[in-house]
Amino acid sequence: MFKIPPHQVAGHHASNGTLGPLVDDSGRFYKPLQGDERGSAEVAFYEQFSANTEIPDRIRRFFPVFHGTQVMKASDGVEHPHIVLEDLASSRVNPTIMDIKIGSRTFGPEASDEYIAKCLKRDRETTSLRLGFRISGLQVYISEEVGFYKPPRDLVLKSTTDEVKLLFRRFVSDDPTNHVLASEVYGGPNGILAQLLELKVWFEDQTVYHFCACSLLFMYEKTTASEGASPNPQVKLIDFAHVTEGKGVIDHNFLGGLCSLIKFLSEALEDLKDHDAPKGVTQESTALVDNGH
Amino acid sequence: MFKIPPHQVAGHHASNGTLGPLVDDSGRFYKPLQGDERGSAEVAFYEQFSANTEIPDRIRRFFPVFHGTQVMKASDGVEHPHIVLEDLASSRVNPTIMDIKIGSRTFGPEASDEYIAKCLKRDRETTSLRLGFRISGLQVYISEEVGFYKPPRDLVLKSTTDEVKLLFRRFVSDDPTNHVLASEVYGGPNGILAQLLELKVWFEDQTVYHFCACSLLFMYEKTTASEGASPNPQVKLIDFAHVTEGKGVIDHNFLGGLCSLIKFLSEALEDLKDHDAPKGVTQESTALVDNGH
Repeated sequence: MFKIPPHQVAGHHASNGTLGPLVDDSGRFYKPLQGDERGSAEVAFYEQFSANTEIPDRIRRFFPVFHGTQVMKASDGVEHPHIVLEDLASSRVNPTIMDIKIGSRTFGPEASDEYIAKCLKRDRETTSLRLGFRISGLQVYISEEVGFYKPPRDLVLKSTTDEVKLLFRRFVSDDPTNHVLASEVYGGPNGILAQLLELKVWFEDQTVYHFCACSLLFMYEKTTASEGASPNPQVKLIDFAHVTEGKGVIDHNFLGGLCSLIKFLSEALEDLKDHDAPKGVTQESTALVDNGH
Repeated sequence: MFKIPPHQVAGHHASNGTLGPLVDDSGRFYKPLQGDERGSAEVAFYEQFSANTEIPDRIRRFFPVFHGTQVMKASDGVEHPHIVLEDLASSRVNPTIMDIKIGSRTFGPEASDEYIAKCLKRDRETTSLRLGFRISGLQVYISEEVGFYKPPRDLVLKSTTDEVKLLFRRFVSDDPTNHVLASEVYGGPNGILAQLLELKVWFEDQTVYHFCACSLLFMYEKTTASEGASPNPQVKLIDFAHVTEGKGVIDHNFLGGLCSLIKFLSEALEDLKDHDAPKGVTQESTALVDNGH
């Protein structure tokens, strides 16, 4: 009944001695509580957020539905608590997915010196500090024959600014002459950019939550014009183990990264419409894209 | 002919062995070049910015006019290079001024480990990390008899979030029942908020400069209704020793702090209009405000 999520592109996986998330066939996602305070912090966030009647529906739709917690027995017979969430990919057949960790800073003001040092190192080694976000993982559906383009996570995390630009192009097209998909996925009234702009308006005003080290998940379904179906682009917020109270201050760290991301995607959309390579970038210049598939 | 600027509220001052800025009576401000690379970096910024024809006039007005550099002889007879700028306070009689360093992070991605550690410590000790900005200094004109309210800079830098809120109220009124000045200074089509929103639109788009560790300067003139004059609120950007190239990325660190500041001022304006104390803050609770004058 339970299986390993087929479309996870970032975050914790099951491995020797580590529990990973599971999904069932009724559309639920079971995330093992991280053993330290992070697990309980994430549960506390979901409980508080679910009960918060101030959240408008147009914003709540960006968050996974929370179904409480559940103790589950692992294969070794040990019981372990899980957060039960909506499985965001359950209604999709071959979802193209990108996970982007938002914020130039992934630690909060109250973090310990040791934790700050660890995060700051990671933020400097990835694009976080420079761009205000980093791509944590992605998969791009190519075709039934080829399957998915899913570059190794380590390589994705090491992306340079130019490689991030290419990944945003790659995300919406394996074919540089096909800009129709980009217009539908990034552009348009229901596209990813429109959804991010809706989030931006909320982040300019809300002072209740600071979404430290959270990710934005982009998802869509590749379709051919003949099928007549929409790629149904969706933006979701995930990973709330480091959410802290806003205490009357906007989440300027998330908002800054979000604005930077919006600018990148706007430019990617323009570039794809123009059929040109992004300024100063040659497709051949990066191992990340050449070795894709 | 040269004198010490009478209205400087933050930044370097002349002291034993250190040169400070000077002003003349023709409206120019002479800033000694900092000896290390910061001095030449600031000159390079002003030269590049002055020559940049892409900057729209509605944005250029936020920057001091640059008059080149000039070698001047100090009182000890040693010659020292200075940046010559417009003296922003020269046309004002009793200006009320606030200097706010913008950004939750005051170091750039290329800074050395040692410099990062120093800045991060300062950003955590002040409100920078939490609020996305810190008040570096202020003076508030009270009256001819009383003169200026000018709290010690050390005390200002140690402000808590609640004290920052009080300083934003104090900046526009020494009298809690006088909200007219707040409406004129923060509000209205030419007020500080309108100017900050204009800057925000530019920062959402410009990817040429990263204004690391820069300050926003707020200035206005206290007037009485009977004089019929406007307080003429002005916003300026100053201190460009740490500006770096944007390289196609927006300045998400500055933008995040700017949005946080806009939110604070909007709330201060609402609070003052309501004649109420800011939520959860009692005027009596802070040494900073009680010991003011």
